[in-house]
Amino acid sequence: MGRTSDAKERLINSAIKLISARSYTAVGVQELCKHAGIKKGSFYHFFPSKRELTLAALDVMWETFREKVLEPTFTSDLPPMEKFRRFLDTSYQHHCSTRETTGCMTGCQVGNLAVELSTQDEVIRQKIEQIFEQWADCCERVLNEAVAAGDLPVEIDPRATAQAILAYIEGILLLGKTFNDPSLIKRLGRGVVQLAIVGKGFGETDIKI
Amino acid sequence: MGRTSDAKERLINSAIKLISARSYTAVGVQELCKHAGIKKGSFYHFFPSKRELTLAALDVMWETFREKVLEPTFTSDLPPMEKFRRFLDTSYQHHCSTRETTGCMTGCQVGNLAVELSTQDEVIRQKIEQIFEQWADCCERVLNEAVAAGDLPVEIDPRATAQAILAYIEGILLLGKTFNDPSLIKRLGRGVVQLAIVGKGFGETDIKI
Repeated sequence: MGRTSDAKERLINSAIKLISARSYTAVGVQELCKHAGIKKGSFYHFFPSKRELTLAALDVMWETFREKVLEPTFTSDLPPMEKFRRFLDTSYQHHCSTRETTGCMTGCQVGNLAVELSTQDEVIRQKIEQIFEQWADCCERVLNEAVAAGDLPVEIDPRATAQAILAYIEGILLLGKTFNDPSLIKRLGRGVVQLAIVGKGFGETDIKI
Repeated sequence: MGRTSDAKERLINSAIKLISARSYTAVGVQELCKHAGIKKGSFYHFFPSKRELTLAALDVMWETFREKVLEPTFTSDLPPMEKFRRFLDTSYQHHCSTRETTGCMTGCQVGNLAVELSTQDEVIRQKIEQIFEQWADCCERVLNEAVAAGDLPVEIDPRATAQAILAYIEGILLLGKTFNDPSLIKRLGRGVVQLAIVGKGFGETDIKI
C-alpha cells in the first residue's frame, strides 16, 4: 500500500498511466484509487476532483518531459538543428518501447488531453495552452540558435516556425497513434527541419502560402 | 419527432453533433436518443451499440467531408498547389463559423475520435486508419498533378509527402482546438506547401532529416 505521504504522488502517477492509456472520461475516481492503492474516501483529502488531479498530472507530465527529454537535448552541445533530430530519435525510441510493453502507441499525453477536453473544460484547456506555449518557447530558442549559427535564414519568423514544428510533431504523434505505428515518427520526422528551413514564409499572416 | 424512417439518420446526425462537441465517452446512448427524438428502447433496433453508431457516423463524417470539401477543391480546375490553399481557406472559414456558433473550435471530427479511441477500440481505430489512408490518397493525387505540371520536383516521395501534409493539418487543427483559435490555420497553413516543396527528403526512411 505504501506510505500515506506517498498517496498524492501515487494518485498522480496512476492518473498519468491510466488516462494516457485510455482517456480522461474513461477513467473514474474509483479506478484511480484502486490503482494507486488508496481508499476512495481518501481521494478527496488530496484532490477536490478528478479535474484537480488531472491539472496536477499535467504539471508532472510537462515537467518530466521537459527535464528528461527536452532539456538534455535542447540545451546540449549539439548543433541547433541536430537537436531536433535527436529529439525525434528519442521520441521514436520512447514510442517503440511503449508499444512493445502495452501493444499500443499512446501518442502525446498532453495532446491527447487537449483533444479530449479543450471544448469541455476551460481550466484544463488553459493549462494545456500554457504547456504548449512553453513547448513552443523551447523550439523557438533552438531556432534562434540556428539563425545565430547561420544554419537558418535570418528572415524566418521564429515564433510561427516553432508553432508549426509543434503542430507537426503533434500531428505525427496523432497519426502514429491512429496507425499504431511509431515508424511514422522516422518516416515523417525530417519534415520538422524542412518546415524550419522554409520558415520565413510564416511571417505573413494572410492565407496565401 | 419526425418519421420513424428518419430515425437512423437522426441518430447518426446526433452522434456527429454531440460527440464532435464533447467526446465519444462523454456522450451516452440516452442523450443521443433524446437529441435524436427517439425512445431509448428503439436505439437497439437501429444499432447494436454506441460503437456501431459511431462507425456509421465516421462513414458519414468522411463522405460529407469528401463530397462537400475535398472533391470540390481537389478535382477543380485550380492549379495543383492552389488546391491546398483553397482547402485551407475553406477549413479556416468552417472553423471560424463553428467557433462563432458554439464558442469552441472543435477541431477535426475524425482526428478527435482517433486520439480518444485508438488505444481503446481496435475496430474504430481500423476504420479511422482507412479514412486517413483515403485522405492521404486525395493529397497524393494533387501532389502527383503538381509534379506532372512541373510545380514540384519529380524526386518527391508523393505518399510520404501526402502523409506529412495530413499529419501537419491534423496537428494544426489540434493546436487550433487547444488555443480555441482558428487563425492558427491561416498562420501555419502555408507550411503545407513548404512540406511539399521539400518533400523529396521523405524518400529516405532513416531518422536523418
